Amino acid sequence: MSASLATLDTPAAIVDVPRMQHNIQRMQQRMDALGVRLRPHIKTSKCLPVIRAQLTAGASGVTVSTLKEAQYCFAEGIRDVFYAVAIAPGKLAQALLLRRQGCQLSLLTDSIAAAQAIVAFGQQHHERFDVWIEIDCDGHRSGLHVEDDSLVEVARILSEGGMQLRGVMTHAGSSYELDTPEALQALAEQERGLCVKAAQRIREAGFPCPEVSIGSTPTALSALSLDGVTEVRAGVYVFFDLVMHNIGICQPDELALSVLTTVIGHQKDKGWIITDAGWMSMSRDRGTQRQKRDFGYGQVCTEAGDWIEGALLTGANQEHGIIALETAENVDITVRFPIGSRLRILPNHACATGTQFPDYHAVDAEGGVHTWGRLHGW
Amino acid sequence: MSASLATLDTPAAIVDVPRMQHNIQRMQQRMDALGVRLRPHIKTSKCLPVIRAQLTAGASGVTVSTLKEAQYCFAEGIRDVFYAVAIAPGKLAQALLLRRQGCQLSLLTDSIAAAQAIVAFGQQHHERFDVWIEIDCDGHRSGLHVEDDSLVEVARILSEGGMQLRGVMTHAGSSYELDTPEALQALAEQERGLCVKAAQRIREAGFPCPEVSIGSTPTALSALSLDGVTEVRAGVYVFFDLVMHNIGICQPDELALSVLTTVIGHQKDKGWIITDAGWMSMSRDRGTQRQKRDFGYGQVCTEAGDWIEGALLTGANQEHGIIALETAENVDITVRFPIGSRLRILPNHACATGTQFPDYHAVDAEGGVHTWGRLHGW
Repeated sequence: MSASLATLDTPAAIVDVPRMQHNIQRMQQRMDALGVRLRPHIKTSKCLPVIRAQLTAGASGVTVSTLKEAQYCFAEGIRDVFYAVAIAPGKLAQALLLRRQGCQLSLLTDSIAAAQAIVAFGQQHHERFDVWIEIDCDGHRSGLHVEDDSLVEVARILSEGGMQLRGVMTHAGSSYELDTPEALQALAEQERGLCVKAAQRIREAGFPCPEVSIGSTPTALSALSLDGVTEVRAGVYVFFDLVMHNIGICQPDELALSVLTTVIGHQKDKGWIITDAGWMSMSRDRGTQRQKRDFGYGQVCTEAGDWIEGALLTGANQEHGIIALETAENVDITVRFPIGSRLRILPNHACATGTQFPDYHAVDAEGGVHTWGRLHGW
Repeated sequence: MSASLATLDTPAAIVDVPRMQHNIQRMQQRMDALGVRLRPHIKTSKCLPVIRAQLTAGASGVTVSTLKEAQYCFAEGIRDVFYAVAIAPGKLAQALLLRRQGCQLSLLTDSIAAAQAIVAFGQQHHERFDVWIEIDCDGHRSGLHVEDDSLVEVARILSEGGMQLRGVMTHAGSSYELDTPEALQALAEQERGLCVKAAQRIREAGFPCPEVSIGSTPTALSALSLDGVTEVRAGVYVFFDLVMHNIGICQPDELALSVLTTVIGHQKDKGWIITDAGWMSMSRDRGTQRQKRDFGYGQVCTEAGDWIEGALLTGANQEHGIIALETAENVDITVRFPIGSRLRILPNHACATGTQFPDYHAVDAEGGVHTWGRLHGW
């Protein structure tokens, strides 16, 4: 093994593999204990070695946010792929192509218009698409309300139109706004309850609805019961990040993604340490801004990964990061953080930071560094 | 020409080529009139056809924010490259390699420590690096104050150490916080005045300082005089964006970059139109948040590019965008923006949005679409 952290150019996206494996085990064991399948959302990593580790640990299939991710997984032999964004009619041809190649691709809809488009396209091409219906469990974004008459109508259109209605799914995205175990448990129960209820409505109307898929990392790790649920989708747990830390569902030593950076300058009068990790590497995500603890653009750690309390990436230009210390008295920043020294920054949002990089540099338990490519674009 | 806007999958980054050419001409003509060279900052586009258009219009050399950009330009025959981020000592080997290959690469420093590192490395490898000294003209980020004793000391270290001191440079990054012509003119004059003064200090101390390089898009387009300046660096003018629009230095019909998106759902009770352009395509940049007009994650336009007044991308998840209308009474959003219909979103920050895409789709005056690759990563 020739590569090590010390030989890497900066900025670099570092994956701590033991932490990642711990996170994968933690979620898988929890889902096993609750008696549901885990279908990891690969939009966080977009990286095959990470996905393989999740499948090896026991995951069933994958969730994707783009058809390019579906293609990427299928090309590596992963057949059970759920494209968990409401399908645009213009993407049906691409979905058909994947299915004709042997990918067991599932589609999603939350509208009569899209259901009709799926049926029309499916019938035209003699394809029985696997389709899920999206349920809105918390007003966060998309989906049909459980009491909406369109719910049964969409199920009817798909079933009578010859499509395979696989089930219902929901995502409690508002869990990102919570930060107490009680609130998270309550939302997890709401997510479960409403999605199960939606399935029951469809079944009572006489249509098959075998699957109930729910998930977000915070609710998945907070749910006390998943009765009636068949699978859970979650993504960011694989790396965690400062937003998840603020929500309260992970500890600092579970944060598996960081950005390695070099000190390139100082502004002594302001107490600023200038680095080569700006927003181009951290992303513009300021997800902790409205949480109980604002980490700026990231929490500063030593090169070895030890949290430096009170040191934050407070500013970010394209290729410049500005680090400030909460208590800078008696600290000569040019001595403590000299030019050329290196630091690691924990990001607010692992999905957003990861995508800024063509590759991760994965550091194993022995300190060996492996280059792991990741997907970019659509 | 087989490709057209209508055949593109979404999301896609669209470059309006006539607008881009207009923007290039506008900046070049202004610099010509003021009697200075223009060295465009390619960090905005990271795209060769764009860079070539800038050079064809009269630009002299390029500015880059990473050594990968330098390599990218040099591989296409562009020799005069200014890496305008203070060099980390660990990157000197890569800089040396580029110079040995024939690239006339310029480096930047704003500290005694880095100047010493450049000299030590240069002497060790018998390389006379071209080096610029960064000046702080507005407290925005990096650079030495004109009255700082280190300024002359850095010039002395470089010159006596055998390096080629090319000149001084500054970037009035605080121009992004202004929005009146008067304030911009004043800052442009401050940027010019302080950088020229820094050069004079160095010259009076007996060291050569032939060049004075300044620049930011807002100050470049606001300066009334550039006496004593030899070149201007500017980047985002090539596409402009909503932040620049709010600053007041461009008109809506000069915004050359937009994201093509498809409507994938609605939440009628909330008045939300859900699209497939989330933050993965728009970026997380909320640059207009603190400006006089907050555009959310972007301004919504028709597929043809016409501004839809009062329609903003108010929310963004990874692959979901949420559009809301300021006045939604009497509008049935499912009829006006049906599923499958397409829109274009003008971004807050062209540099941040562009980087989310592996390619631009450049639309020429005849409506033909060309795929232009762009650089990603370091």
